[in-house]
Amino acid sequence: MIYDCAVIGSGPAGLSAAINLAQTNRSVVVFATKLEDSSIYRAPEVNNYLGFHGVTGKELLQAFYDHAKKMGIEVVYKKVINFYKSGDIFTINANNEFFEAYSVILAIGTPKKTLLENESEFVGRGISYCAICDGMLYRGRNIAVIGESMEAEEEAEYLSELAKKVYYIPLYKKNEFHFRDNVEIVLARPKGVYGEDFVNALEFEDRILNVDGIFIIRKTMPADQLIYGLEFTEDGHIKVDDKMQTSIEGLFAAGDCTGRPYQVAKAVGEGQIAGLSASTYVKMVKEKQK
Amino acid sequence: MIYDCAVIGSGPAGLSAAINLAQTNRSVVVFATKLEDSSIYRAPEVNNYLGFHGVTGKELLQAFYDHAKKMGIEVVYKKVINFYKSGDIFTINANNEFFEAYSVILAIGTPKKTLLENESEFVGRGISYCAICDGMLYRGRNIAVIGESMEAEEEAEYLSELAKKVYYIPLYKKNEFHFRDNVEIVLARPKGVYGEDFVNALEFEDRILNVDGIFIIRKTMPADQLIYGLEFTEDGHIKVDDKMQTSIEGLFAAGDCTGRPYQVAKAVGEGQIAGLSASTYVKMVKEKQK
Repeated sequence: MIYDCAVIGSGPAGLSAAINLAQTNRSVVVFATKLEDSSIYRAPEVNNYLGFHGVTGKELLQAFYDHAKKMGIEVVYKKVINFYKSGDIFTINANNEFFEAYSVILAIGTPKKTLLENESEFVGRGISYCAICDGMLYRGRNIAVIGESMEAEEEAEYLSELAKKVYYIPLYKKNEFHFRDNVEIVLARPKGVYGEDFVNALEFEDRILNVDGIFIIRKTMPADQLIYGLEFTEDGHIKVDDKMQTSIEGLFAAGDCTGRPYQVAKAVGEGQIAGLSASTYVKMVKEKQK
Repeated sequence: MIYDCAVIGSGPAGLSAAINLAQTNRSVVVFATKLEDSSIYRAPEVNNYLGFHGVTGKELLQAFYDHAKKMGIEVVYKKVINFYKSGDIFTINANNEFFEAYSVILAIGTPKKTLLENESEFVGRGISYCAICDGMLYRGRNIAVIGESMEAEEEAEYLSELAKKVYYIPLYKKNEFHFRDNVEIVLARPKGVYGEDFVNALEFEDRILNVDGIFIIRKTMPADQLIYGLEFTEDGHIKVDDKMQTSIEGLFAAGDCTGRPYQVAKAVGEGQIAGLSASTYVKMVKEKQK
């Protein structure tokens, strides 16, 4: 099956896009993270999304999710690793399961700042954001895996099967880890990357670890790793036109990833525009194919 | 009192702007029309505003209005005739009552198409949109008053005190009218304007009425009549930047009046951006004044 649209992200922008696509009779799949991964989940009170007064961020997100469920939106809890466009079809790799769609909407939240000094310099030269994509390159070698959340442990485990030694650096709080013997937990804040042509060490406040590669595992992949050719604004947001289309035809974006203010109503509004624009775009593509 | 912001319009965009201003501790006054004047009031079902599933347009608008009330937003049911900026202060004429504000947000809904052939040609030369502004010019003369809604009757009544003869053309359904003797009700669809330098007749399908002036009374004033110097896009929407600021500093716009899609979530999102931008702008103006 080729979906009319694949929405990457299940926050306010992604769900708004999805319900607007469903409303115009388009088939849609949402690649989701957990409710609690949305940045407003922990907000004690939200008052500035019109229609909801005095709700918690969690209640608001739950209402959004319920709405999407009532409209029969298909939600897939898989991390999108990357995707590409060939002809009129986008192929999406979600944890090595492949999906096809005529259009894609990026609703991946605030642009992540780089974590390490010199990180950008070493991308593709020892810095990786994806175990499944690049793990094989580090067979038998020493690597560091920096995990933003618990979900990263699964990728660390996979990498520990290939690598000789894995230093696992959790950026979240947890006391117990169950890894193979070749995994060492490092409870310190990583700071910078050392290397010449290629990474050869990871620096902390109090130590330096010699490694051949560093994996930074986040809940969502950085936008510039997801697809080739995406353009960005000077301040690092995804560039969109007034229909929320990116530099790639058929690829739209909405919410925090397109710019400030990082607010729910702005995200929901942009999600709607992106959803309706994708809907119109898909109609055009299908008519062309006839 | 000088308000931090005056919001013109009480639909989704206007109320969203207002609650976002209140949320950032700004004083705000909303110039409102009745709930039923919003274009979605009669929608039997709205499903694409995230968080509300299967509600009527009326229910949704009521929830919006309740939210604004809970946040203590001041709502004034007066029609804004025009406003101007002098120094850093906007002065707003609402039915000849004057209000002052450091910023203004236009949330006046879809741009109204001209009603009559040649209408634009005769603006200021016999075509008027405001009884209070231009009534005196027609003292002792014959005029037509085209009323979009019942509220126009009040303006027609005022004009009938000045004019020799008033043809009142209601564009809405109603059976009984209570006017002075010099008012004649015309139940026909107006079509075009005749005149040379100045209006001298109003044309219908079935008749021509000789008049010296034509008042077209709408629920809201056309944007280009509200303030001098406002810029528009080629398709007749108010031109805004990515902060929703218009061509005039301190004047913002949101919702249907800035462009398509004419949808609730888009309007609420833009209202939020406009509200937050106005809030930031007002802070700057006040700091400058210190």
